[in-house]
Amino acid sequence: MNSPLQKIKETKPLIHHITNWVTIYECANMTRAFGALPVMAHSPEECADMTAISSALVLNIGTLTYEIIDAMMLSASSANEKKIPVIFDAVGVGSTKFRDEMAAKIFDSVHIDIIKGNYSEIAKLAGESTETKGVETTSINVDPEKVAKELAKSKSSIVVMTGKEDIISDGKKIYIIRNGNEQMGSIVGTGCMAASVIGLFASINFNYFDASKDALCYFGVAGELAAEKSNGPGSFIVNLYDEVFNLSDEKVKNMMNFEEK
Amino acid sequence: MNSPLQKIKETKPLIHHITNWVTIYECANMTRAFGALPVMAHSPEECADMTAISSALVLNIGTLTYEIIDAMMLSASSANEKKIPVIFDAVGVGSTKFRDEMAAKIFDSVHIDIIKGNYSEIAKLAGESTETKGVETTSINVDPEKVAKELAKSKSSIVVMTGKEDIISDGKKIYIIRNGNEQMGSIVGTGCMAASVIGLFASINFNYFDASKDALCYFGVAGELAAEKSNGPGSFIVNLYDEVFNLSDEKVKNMMNFEEK
Amino acid sequence: MNSPLQKIKETKPLIHHITNWVTIYECANMTRAFGALPVMAHSPEECADMTAISSALVLNIGTLTYEIIDAMMLSASSANEKKIPVIFDAVGVGSTKFRDEMAAKIFDSVHIDIIKGNYSEIAKLAGESTETKGVETTSINVDPEKVAKELAKSKSSIVVMTGKEDIISDGKKIYIIRNGNEQMGSIVGTGCMAASVIGLFASINFNYFDASKDALCYFGVAGELAAEKSNGPGSFIVNLYDEVFNLSDEKVKNMMNFEEK
Repeated sequence: MNSPLQKIKETKPLIHHITNWVTIYECANMTRAFGALPVMAHSPEECADMTAISSALVLNIGTLTYEIIDAMMLSASSANEKKIPVIFDAVGVGSTKFRDEMAAKIFDSVHIDIIKGNYSEIAKLAGESTETKGVETTSINVDPEKVAKELAKSKSSIVVMTGKEDIISDGKKIYIIRNGNEQMGSIVGTGCMAASVIGLFASINFNYFDASKDALCYFGVAGELAAEKSNGPGSFIVNLYDEVFNLSDEKVKNMMNFEEK
Repeated sequence: MNSPLQKIKETKPLIHHITNWVTIYECANMTRAFGALPVMAHSPEECADMTAISSALVLNIGTLTYEIIDAMMLSASSANEKKIPVIFDAVGVGSTKFRDEMAAKIFDSVHIDIIKGNYSEIAKLAGESTETKGVETTSINVDPEKVAKELAKSKSSIVVMTGKEDIISDGKKIYIIRNGNEQMGSIVGTGCMAASVIGLFASINFNYFDASKDALCYFGVAGELAAEKSNGPGSFIVNLYDEVFNLSDEKVKNMMNFEEK
Repeated sequence: MNSPLQKIKETKPLIHHITNWVTIYECANMTRAFGALPVMAHSPEECADMTAISSALVLNIGTLTYEIIDAMMLSASSANEKKIPVIFDAVGVGSTKFRDEMAAKIFDSVHIDIIKGNYSEIAKLAGESTETKGVETTSINVDPEKVAKELAKSKSSIVVMTGKEDIISDGKKIYIIRNGNEQMGSIVGTGCMAASVIGLFASINFNYFDASKDALCYFGVAGELAAEKSNGPGSFIVNLYDEVFNLSDEKVKNMMNFEEK
C-alpha cells in the first residue's frame, strides 16, 4: 500500500473549492484536518487564477446560482488545461429543473474527472426518471452498480455514488466501499466533506479510481472511529475532525473494507 | 400529549430555508438533529420549485440583500399556494431602515404564518418606535404581551417573541414559555435555530400556535439539559446537538414549563 | 494593567463584519464568546448604516467579489467619519491579481486603522515580490519586522503580521507576540477570528497599537489553554471557545508573552 496520508501531509496540496454556503466551513476544515490547504474563491475575476495555482478543484452545487455556475465553468476550464482533477458533487440534482439544467450545462462545457452524488442524484445524471428530496436521496428503481458504470462510461469520468454502500466505477470496474457509519448521516455536511476528501486524494494520485476508493475508505474509517466515542451529532463531528487528524495509514489498513468487482 | 418528535422522525419533513450566511450551517444541522431534512436554496430560478416539494419554509433576513428578498417572496408565494407554513425571522429589524423596509415589503406581498423575533424586533414590526442593536434586542417601553397580541391580530399570524421569557400569541391567547437557558444566548445562532425548529414543528401540526409552543419547549429543554454539562459556549453547542438528537417526548413532558393566558 | 476584558463584557460593543462566507460563523461566535456583539451585514443598501451604530468594523476579503468590495468601501467611509477603528484582514493577498488590485482599491479610497495579514500577505502589501499559496503564507525573503514597520509608516496604520511569532508595528515601535499555539493553525479560521478579536479590543481602546497587542495575547493565551486539553482540531475549537469565554485578566497576566522593541 502506498501512503496517501503522508503524501498529503508532506506536500500540503492546495484544494480550490467553489461550493455551497451551508457546509463551506466544514469542507475547508476537513481539508485542513487531513493536512492539506483549502481555498475558497468564487469571484469570476479570480477563480480561474486560483485554480491555476491549486492541485485539485472541488465543485459543489448545493446553493447554486447562475453566477456560481459561471465561476465553476471558468475554474474547471482552467483545471482541465492544467490537468488537475475536477470533482463535481451533484448536490440536489433531481430536485429542481434548474439544478438538472445547470448540471447539464457544466457537463456540456468542461470535463469532470470525478462525479459524486447520492443514489438518486447519480441516477438522475444517468438519465433515469428519478427524483431527489431536496438534497436527500430517494430509492431508485434501477441497479445502482449498472447506473454508476454507465454514467462513468458515457462521461469518461470516475463515478462515486454514496449511500449505505458506496459504489465507485471507472466505466469497467466497480469498487464497493463498506466503511463509514450511519452517524455520518446524522450531521449535515459529511457528503460535501467526502467530495473534498476525494479532491485531496486525487490531487496526489493520478489514478482517480483508486484515489476515490482510498478517500472513502480513509474518511469512512475516521467516521467509524469517531462514532464509537460519540453521544450524538454534536460530539460526532468533533470526534470526526480529531480522528481524521490522528489517522494513520496503519489504522486504516486494518479497517479498510472494500470489494473490487 | 401528541408526539411531535416521533412524527418528525417518521415523516422526515423537508424544511426549505432562505436564510443568512452566518448561521446557515447551524440551522441546517439543528433541523437534521431533530430528524428532519434541511434544504437551503436561494436562487430565484429554483427557490419556488424547492418550496413546492417542502413541508415548511423558513425565512431569515440576517444577511439580506435585494436578491434574497426577491427569492423569499417567490418562495413564500409558492408556500402560500401549497398551504405550507411560512416562518419569518425578523433578524435585525429596527437596526437599519433597509431591514424595516424589506420586512414591510415582504408583509405587503405574501402571508407569513409565524412571525418570530426578539423583543425589539417584534415591537418595531408592531409599529413601536424602538431600535435594535445590530441583531440584539434592546429594552422596549411597551408591554410585550400586548405588542405580540396586536401584531398577531393585525397580520393574522402567530407571533413568537423570544427573550428571557418567550411570548407566543395568536392574537387572542398568549403562551409564556419559561424553558431554555441563558447559555443559549452565549453562542451565535440559537435564535435562528429556534426559527428552524418552529418550522419543523409547524410542518407536522396545522395548529401553528401550539406548534410554536411545542417547538420552543422542546428546544428549550434540550438547552437546559445541554447547559448542565457544558463549560462554555464551545461545549454548549456540542451538547445542544447531542441533547436534541437524544430528546424524547417523555423527557420533555417532565420539564416543559409554559403558561397559557 | 487595564482590564480590557471587563470593559468588553460591560459595554458589549457591536462589531460590524463584512467578511468571507467560510469563517463567518466562527468570527461571529468568537466575538460573542468574548462578550461582545457581532453583526454581519454586507448589503450596500444598509452596510454604512450598520457601521454607524457599531464600535468597530472588521473587513476580510477571504471570498471577495466586486459587490463585497463596494460594500466594504461604503462601510469604511462611514467608520472613518465616525472615527471607529477599521480592521482589514488581507486574506489571500499575493495569490491572485484580483485580490491585490482590490486591496489597493480599498487603500486608495478609505483609511484602514489596523492592517492584518500573514507574512506573505503583509509583504505583498508592502510592495515586495512575494506570493501567497491560496490563503497560506509562504516564506518571505525580507526582514519581517522591517516590512511591518515600513507598511505601517507608509499607510499610517497599525500593522499586524501573524505567524509563528506575531509582529505588530505602528511605524516606529514593534511588539513581538509569542503567545498562541501551533494547534491554532490546525483549524480553519483562527486567523479570521484574530481579526475579529483585534476589532473588539480596538473598539474599547483608542491606542490601536496596544489594543492589537492585547488582542493577540488574550487570544493566544486562550489558544494555549485550549491546546492542553485537546486531542485534535475538533476538540481544539470547542475548547478554544470555552477558554475564551472563561478567560480572566488574571490568567492572561500570568501567561502574556510579548516583547517591545
